[in-house]
Amino acid sequence: MLKLLYEGKAKKVYQTEKEDELILSYKDDATAFNGKKKAQFVGKGRFNNLITAHVFNYLTAQGIPHHFIKTLNDTDQRVYKTTILPVEVVVRNRSSYSLNQRLSIPEKTRFSPPLVEWFYKNDDLNDPLINDQHLFLLTDVTELELAHIHALTLKINEALKDFFRQIDLDLIDFKIEFGRNSAGDIILSDEISPDTCRLEDIHTGEHLDKDVFRQGTGDLLDVYQIILSRLED
Amino acid sequence: MLKLLYEGKAKKVYQTEKEDELILSYKDDATAFNGKKKAQFVGKGRFNNLITAHVFNYLTAQGIPHHFIKTLNDTDQRVYKTTILPVEVVVRNRSSYSLNQRLSIPEKTRFSPPLVEWFYKNDDLNDPLINDQHLFLLTDVTELELAHIHALTLKINEALKDFFRQIDLDLIDFKIEFGRNSAGDIILSDEISPDTCRLEDIHTGEHLDKDVFRQGTGDLLDVYQIILSRLED
Ligand SMILES: Nc1ncnc2c1ncn2[C@@H]1O[C@H](COP(=O)(O)OP(=O)(O)O)[C@@H](O)[C@H]1O
Ligand SMILES: Nc1ncnc2c1ncn2[C@@H]1O[C@H](COP(=O)(O)OP(=O)(O)O)[C@@H](O)[C@H]1O
Ligand SMILES: [Mg+2]
Ligand SMILES: [Mg+2]
Repeated sequence: MLKLLYEGKAKKVYQTEKEDELILSYKDDATAFNGKKKAQFVGKGRFNNLITAHVFNYLTAQGIPHHFIKTLNDTDQRVYKTTILPVEVVVRNRSSYSLNQRLSIPEKTRFSPPLVEWFYKNDDLNDPLINDQHLFLLTDVTELELAHIHALTLKINEALKDFFRQIDLDLIDFKIEFGRNSAGDIILSDEISPDTCRLEDIHTGEHLDKDVFRQGTGDLLDVYQIILSRLED
Repeated sequence: MLKLLYEGKAKKVYQTEKEDELILSYKDDATAFNGKKKAQFVGKGRFNNLITAHVFNYLTAQGIPHHFIKTLNDTDQRVYKTTILPVEVVVRNRSSYSLNQRLSIPEKTRFSPPLVEWFYKNDDLNDPLINDQHLFLLTDVTELELAHIHALTLKINEALKDFFRQIDLDLIDFKIEFGRNSAGDIILSDEISPDTCRLEDIHTGEHLDKDVFRQGTGDLLDVYQIILSRLED
């Protein structure tokens, strides 16, 4: 029996026999609005596990340092253990409903360079937006490390835009997390899936991501299946 | 009759006979929580008008470029007209109740260097916190100008700390606004008063600022009178 270290909103985290390796087990739960909206979708865990694996394998080829080791089965993947920085990094290539609400920047406005935002990963505080100075106060990230994270983030954005473009999807925005591995290096961690990206079909303009659940505009499983099918083609 | 250009929460703004000079007329109204709490205090306008004049005269001596020209009477002052940048610049030397609520940074934590925050000046959006990139999207401020505003802000903080220390007050935090004058230079504008600063008596630890109204912990007029008396001594 593996030891359960943490159960989050979307995944369970297990310690493996190796001190610095974990298993991420993707759950079938969907949550939105910081957990206020919840539902179960049988098969969602498999989709996000497999889609995330496709993404990380692509990022390996692009030279992005990350935690992903390998897929174990339909819902589980092995990753290097990191100390997650309590920061959600959001990258926006286009404005969305939420940014329009927050700052009156019309939906679909294109950002070039992309807009990068830090949110303090703290459910009790509702993941508030922070600036660089807050980040230094709230984490042990140094100025040099922040510059590194910023550069890495822009590189990840370029890679992800290309990745999704190959399956006819436009990457509107996404959320990533970084962590420190046992060598002290900051590497990309967590998942990259339709739960964490906003994706638009370049032909139909349809949203193929968790927004169908957030906004109640479509069937989550159908949409995640479309993405996985395109990746497997 | 002077032309009323704008009536805000705390001041009326009149055009003078000179195109690039205005009169700011301080009202007796107090508002808090973005206008949700309101009251009238007869004499408040006079206090803020006169206290602001003391502050700006001190800033002249410190070489800070600003809009203040002169006091006209108990409630009115003449200033250079600027195009106000839609940004509220907040400087924190110590954490406060609101920062503790927002980011769980314990009240009274000292910040050195001070924490500088930009808020988008937009009542409909509730003056949201923004980062540098948002600021470039939402205003016409250039990167060079932002660096200038940041440096000027730190200089203003040092000057204000000294100014208030002379009357036995510790400057916890404050909000300022900048604007572009007719020559295109960015200069300090608006008011600097107990409405816009958090001030603590260094002996008693008492709050001598608008927090007595926000929190309902004291008499606003008494407190503003104490500050003006100390300045006139
Ligand atoms: N490589 C890793 N090492 C340690 N923790 C990780 C790693 N990758 C992701 N995590 C963390 O595991 C948890 C994943 O579960 P999730 O359901 O997404 O949680 P949450 O509800 O906190 O977002 C997250 O807290 C995430 O930060
Ligand atoms: N030198 C100036 N030139 C033009 N406008 C100014 C100047 N100084 C301050 N202002 C603006 O005048 C208004 C002052 O009124 P106030 O009651 O503080 O308004 P508000 O409720 O918008 O904060 C503010 O909008 C402020 O930005
Ligand atoms: Mg998560
Ligand atoms: Mg004002």
